[in-house]
Amino acid sequence: MGDVVQKPARPARGDGAAAGATGAGGPALDPSSPLPLYQQIVAVLTSRIAAGEWEVGARMPGEHDLSEEFGVSRITAKRALDELAGAGLVTRERGRGTRLLAPTSAPPMQSSIEGWLDQMAHMQRTTEVRLLDFGPAAAPPSVTGALGVAPGARLLRTVRVRSLDGAPLSHLTAWLPEPVAEGITAADLEAVPLLKLIERAGVRVNAARQTVSATLAAPDVAQALTLYAGAPLLEVRRVVSDAEGRAVQYLRALYHPDRYQMAMTMTRIEGDGGMQWSPAPALPGHAGGEE
Amino acid sequence: MGDVVQKPARPARGDGAAAGATGAGGPALDPSSPLPLYQQIVAVLTSRIAAGEWEVGARMPGEHDLSEEFGVSRITAKRALDELAGAGLVTRERGRGTRLLAPTSAPPMQSSIEGWLDQMAHMQRTTEVRLLDFGPAAAPPSVTGALGVAPGARLLRTVRVRSLDGAPLSHLTAWLPEPVAEGITAADLEAVPLLKLIERAGVRVNAARQTVSATLAAPDVAQALTLYAGAPLLEVRRVVSDAEGRAVQYLRALYHPDRYQMAMTMTRIEGDGGMQWSPAPALPGHAGGEE
Repeated sequence: MGDVVQKPARPARGDGAAAGATGAGGPALDPSSPLPLYQQIVAVLTSRIAAGEWEVGARMPGEHDLSEEFGVSRITAKRALDELAGAGLVTRERGRGTRLLAPTSAPPMQSSIEGWLDQMAHMQRTTEVRLLDFGPAAAPPSVTGALGVAPGARLLRTVRVRSLDGAPLSHLTAWLPEPVAEGITAADLEAVPLLKLIERAGVRVNAARQTVSATLAAPDVAQALTLYAGAPLLEVRRVVSDAEGRAVQYLRALYHPDRYQMAMTMTRIEGDGGMQWSPAPALPGHAGGEE
Repeated sequence: MGDVVQKPARPARGDGAAAGATGAGGPALDPSSPLPLYQQIVAVLTSRIAAGEWEVGARMPGEHDLSEEFGVSRITAKRALDELAGAGLVTRERGRGTRLLAPTSAPPMQSSIEGWLDQMAHMQRTTEVRLLDFGPAAAPPSVTGALGVAPGARLLRTVRVRSLDGAPLSHLTAWLPEPVAEGITAADLEAVPLLKLIERAGVRVNAARQTVSATLAAPDVAQALTLYAGAPLLEVRRVVSDAEGRAVQYLRALYHPDRYQMAMTMTRIEGDGGMQWSPAPALPGHAGGEE
C-alpha cells in the first residue's frame, strides 16, 4: 500500500503534511499536544487495530517495540499497553506477549427514529435519571437566541444524567422558557422524561431541529458519566418547538460514546442536481453528506 | 439555583457523586485524567461560557483567580487562559483583564439530507481532496463483516482528507470490495467524490446505514485535520449498498467539530407507544431519542 505523501520524521502541528494510518516507523507523536505521549500511542494503536493491522489473536508490538518505534521510554510504552488492556482491546500474558482480542461489540444503546425510551421498554431494560441541578439560571446567548427570549433571561435549567442498567449514558442540560417551566418539579423530573412532562402540561410538541457534533468531557461531566476528563463525547444541541412554532425547550445532550451511538438509514434518490441521499421510507434517516 | 447533590471537595473519578456545571469553588480537577490540568480548566471554562456564566464583554476570572479556585500554579492558569484566547473565545489585554468575546458563529459546514457537495456548489465554495493512501490492504473484521467478504480479505483502501476553502474538514477512510474497486485510480479520487465514481462504474447505489459517534484524534489524523492530537472528532461509520442489497462501500469519516456538524429536523407524531419523533416531511430527519 503506497503512501502518496512522504512522512516527515517529526512533523510540526498543522504544517500541512500528513502521514497514512500505518507505515514503517509509525506516525511521529505530537510533542505540543495536550494529550500525553502514552495516550497518543493508544490513539495510534487503536486506529491501527481499526485499520486491520493485526488479526484477532495475533501478537502485537510489545513494550520494547513501541519504545523503539515511537522513541519513548519503556514506562511510557507499558502505560500505553496497560491502557489498551484496561479497555479490553488486548490481553497481556507473560511469555505470550500482547495479543489482540476481538473488537468490542456494538454499544448497548443505538438510537433510531422511535424514541429510545420506548425501545428500552421493549427490551425490558431500565433507565434511571439522576437530577444534578434544578432551578432558574441566566441563559447564555446561544440558548436565549434559539428560544427567542430576551438576552440574559433567567430560565429553568435542569441538569440530569440518564443511566441504562446502572451505567451512565447521557448528561442532559435543558433550558425551559417561563410558561413551559411552570409546574415542573424536581421530583417530576426524576420520574418522567422531560418531553413527556412538557406534553402533559398541554404543550403540543411539534418539531425539533438539532445539530450533532463532538466535544471533550469537562471534569464534572466526566465524573457524572464515569469517564476520564477529556474523553470524547457525542454532543447534540436540540431546539424543540410547539404547534405554533414557539420554541419550548433547548437541550444540550452529551453521550458516552461507548454506550450510545446514533443509527441512521438513508436511501439514494434522483434529486435536482443528480443522485442524493434521502431518509429511508418508514425508517429513520439522515444523510451525513455526499461522502 | 440549587444543587441537589453536594459537591465533594476533590472527588475521586467515577465515585457516583457529581457536581453541577457551576458553583462556588468550582469542580475539582481530575488528577488521574490523561488531560493536563490546564486543559481541564479550559474544559471547565468553556462549559461555563456555554452555560452563560458571563455576558459577552464581561470580565472573566484572571490568572490569580483561577490558580486560587483550582489550586494550580499561575503558569497553569495562564496556559489555560492563553488557550482560550488562542481559540478566539476571550481577549486578554493589559489592564483590562480577560474578557469574553461573542461566541463563535455556526461552523462553516452543516450537513443536511441533500449531499453537502451540492450545497457547496450552490454556495460557490470549493472543496479539495488530498489522497493520503491508496491501495490494497487487509480489512479488519468490522469491515469484512459489514461488507460480507471473507475475514482478512484484502480490499481497496483509500484515505483522503477533504478541505473546504482550504481548511481540512474530514478524514475519510473507505474500503471497497473487489468488483467495485476495479478501475478506480488515485487520480480519479483526487478529482471526483468516491460515491460518484462508484455510480459512474455502473453500480446502482441504493441505501446506506450509518452510526454516528465521537472519538479522539490520533496524531496522524490530527495533523491531517490541523488539530492537536486528542481533539474530539465526530465519527461516522457507513455501509453503502446497491439495489441488490450488496454492500459496495465501508466508510469511516472523521469530522473536524469546529468546521462540520450534522443538522437534522424531526417532527413529533402519534406512534404505537405514544408520541414519537419522525423525520420531517420533505426535510432531513433523524431522532436522537426521547430526550
